[in-house]
Amino acid sequence: MTATFSSLDEFRAALRSAKGPDAAALAGAAERNGQLTKPAGSLGRLEELAIWYAGWRGQAKPVLAHPQVVIFAGNHGVVARGVSAFPAEVTEQMVLNFQHGGAAINQLSRVAGATMDVHALDLDRPTQDFCEGPAMSEAELLSALKTGWNAVSPEADLLVTGEMGIGNTTPAAAIALALFGGTATDWSGRGTGLDDAGVFRKAEVVAEGVALHQPETGLETLRCLGGREIAAMAGAIARARVLGIPVLLDGFICCAAAACLTAEVPGALDHAVAGHASAEGAHPRLLEKLGKEPLLTLGLRLGEGSGAALAIPILQGAVACLSGMATFAEAGVTDG
Amino acid sequence: MTATFSSLDEFRAALRSAKGPDAAALAGAAERNGQLTKPAGSLGRLEELAIWYAGWRGQAKPVLAHPQVVIFAGNHGVVARGVSAFPAEVTEQMVLNFQHGGAAINQLSRVAGATMDVHALDLDRPTQDFCEGPAMSEAELLSALKTGWNAVSPEADLLVTGEMGIGNTTPAAAIALALFGGTATDWSGRGTGLDDAGVFRKAEVVAEGVALHQPETGLETLRCLGGREIAAMAGAIARARVLGIPVLLDGFICCAAAACLTAEVPGALDHAVAGHASAEGAHPRLLEKLGKEPLLTLGLRLGEGSGAALAIPILQGAVACLSGMATFAEAGVTDG
Repeated sequence: MTATFSSLDEFRAALRSAKGPDAAALAGAAERNGQLTKPAGSLGRLEELAIWYAGWRGQAKPVLAHPQVVIFAGNHGVVARGVSAFPAEVTEQMVLNFQHGGAAINQLSRVAGATMDVHALDLDRPTQDFCEGPAMSEAELLSALKTGWNAVSPEADLLVTGEMGIGNTTPAAAIALALFGGTATDWSGRGTGLDDAGVFRKAEVVAEGVALHQPETGLETLRCLGGREIAAMAGAIARARVLGIPVLLDGFICCAAAACLTAEVPGALDHAVAGHASAEGAHPRLLEKLGKEPLLTLGLRLGEGSGAALAIPILQGAVACLSGMATFAEAGVTDG
Repeated sequence: MTATFSSLDEFRAALRSAKGPDAAALAGAAERNGQLTKPAGSLGRLEELAIWYAGWRGQAKPVLAHPQVVIFAGNHGVVARGVSAFPAEVTEQMVLNFQHGGAAINQLSRVAGATMDVHALDLDRPTQDFCEGPAMSEAELLSALKTGWNAVSPEADLLVTGEMGIGNTTPAAAIALALFGGTATDWSGRGTGLDDAGVFRKAEVVAEGVALHQPETGLETLRCLGGREIAAMAGAIARARVLGIPVLLDGFICCAAAACLTAEVPGALDHAVAGHASAEGAHPRLLEKLGKEPLLTLGLRLGEGSGAALAIPILQGAVACLSGMATFAEAGVTDG
């Protein structure tokens, strides 16, 4: 499958013209949910999740059988400013680890029954340090969006996007500051393990980058302050929106990518649920800005799509109950 | 496997003499966890969960491949007092629904890859109304404990106990009040959907039962105020403790059963983690009394083991990361 856009305008147009959930499937799922052998509302959030999923899949009794996890990796010029506890070479080392099955996301994808692919984006060409100029040219942004767009399998029935990119909580924080305001400190956390001095330095870098560019749209924010793996995640989430594939959002960096889409096109994340709230300081704040309630809060702060992958079986459970349970009439159970 | 006790004294003795977690496995798992390809602590609660699991299984690289869900059903004399929104006949109807695969727990067990068995305990002989006398005789309690004990598969590597019993949040509330004090209102919630008047009536019944019996030990509380399915859950959780099989606790009724064990023998629940916090009003309070932090909080209030079954893949993910991830040395990744 090749990209159906060849400019940022066409990308935006594709996202704008994407359909919403299927009204008949939503209504059918809600009606069915009310007839299942359980007290009304007793499956809590699983009920709304399953109905939401049914709407996006266009089926009142949907199946969730082919979840896809896709990981994007990129390197960041801004790392030269000492914003990460790990050196940039680790991005490529971890890509090999993903390919060899040794990372956390490999195990979590396997437990969830998900396929997992890794796309390394020009690791030998880090983005430009955003304190010196835009992180990416328009051509570079477009290329990264396409990588993400084309990485989504049309046969998938759920998408998780993950990332690896040493230093990438810094561009994510810059994106969040540019889109949602506040102070650089509000959005700058410890990442993989910065000390207080490191966090202070990071917040200065974030403030400097945002002040330099002052981007005014979601895509311009992504271009000036983002990174290739962040743009690829945005491209993949957009493609899923167009295909009607529900998305579980991962942590801070994934949500920063997603935020660029919704800043550009309202409703662009209606097909997405927050898989978890991470321990990266500003992630709960970012989820609040996106209006997304996390499914899990277990203190993860790893990235790689790990928190969202961990939430896949929750959604599978919700869908299995909606589609697999007997109704009161079928089971001959007295409805209280 | 037949019960290895023939009196309550022998049951208590078996629970008292059960071994704790394996110190070498705990140490080995913790050491391994520190070498895996991720920033230190970045898997959050998954790390402590996996190490805890390793300790109980006696392996530094454990496998979680055979989870068992076991459901117990019982009927309650106290239902005659109008403490449930559903009639007592639904207990048996739901047992058939479990057997035919139509209930929520069937779907959630399947998603988790767990076996599921159902044990109906003398549904045609409800326990005595605890406002008139002890719910069970000593022989009846012993029989129910044995049913639970024998229901646990020694080959299982994780146990979830669930229940079905119309009206059983009332005995659970009475158990909690007897063990932990407070007021009857503190522990009396809406169950399957009581209105305000129903909750008020339920709290009166709970207060009356506790005042009548004033039980002084965990097992006497279970006998006077519990029910057969509640005692069977206690028996199963005790057996798992003896066998070193970790347990995910379900909601309010499961935790009331478990609380009787820890009131009787301190440390009896060291092998148990709270699968979720339910929307049944007093469950979070009960978890606090047990010192258990829930893995999930998704508004479920169904029972059947549903919340704990939903948490099985979380624990599987934790264990898969500990046992399946590469170390920094194995993967050639630079440790920050």
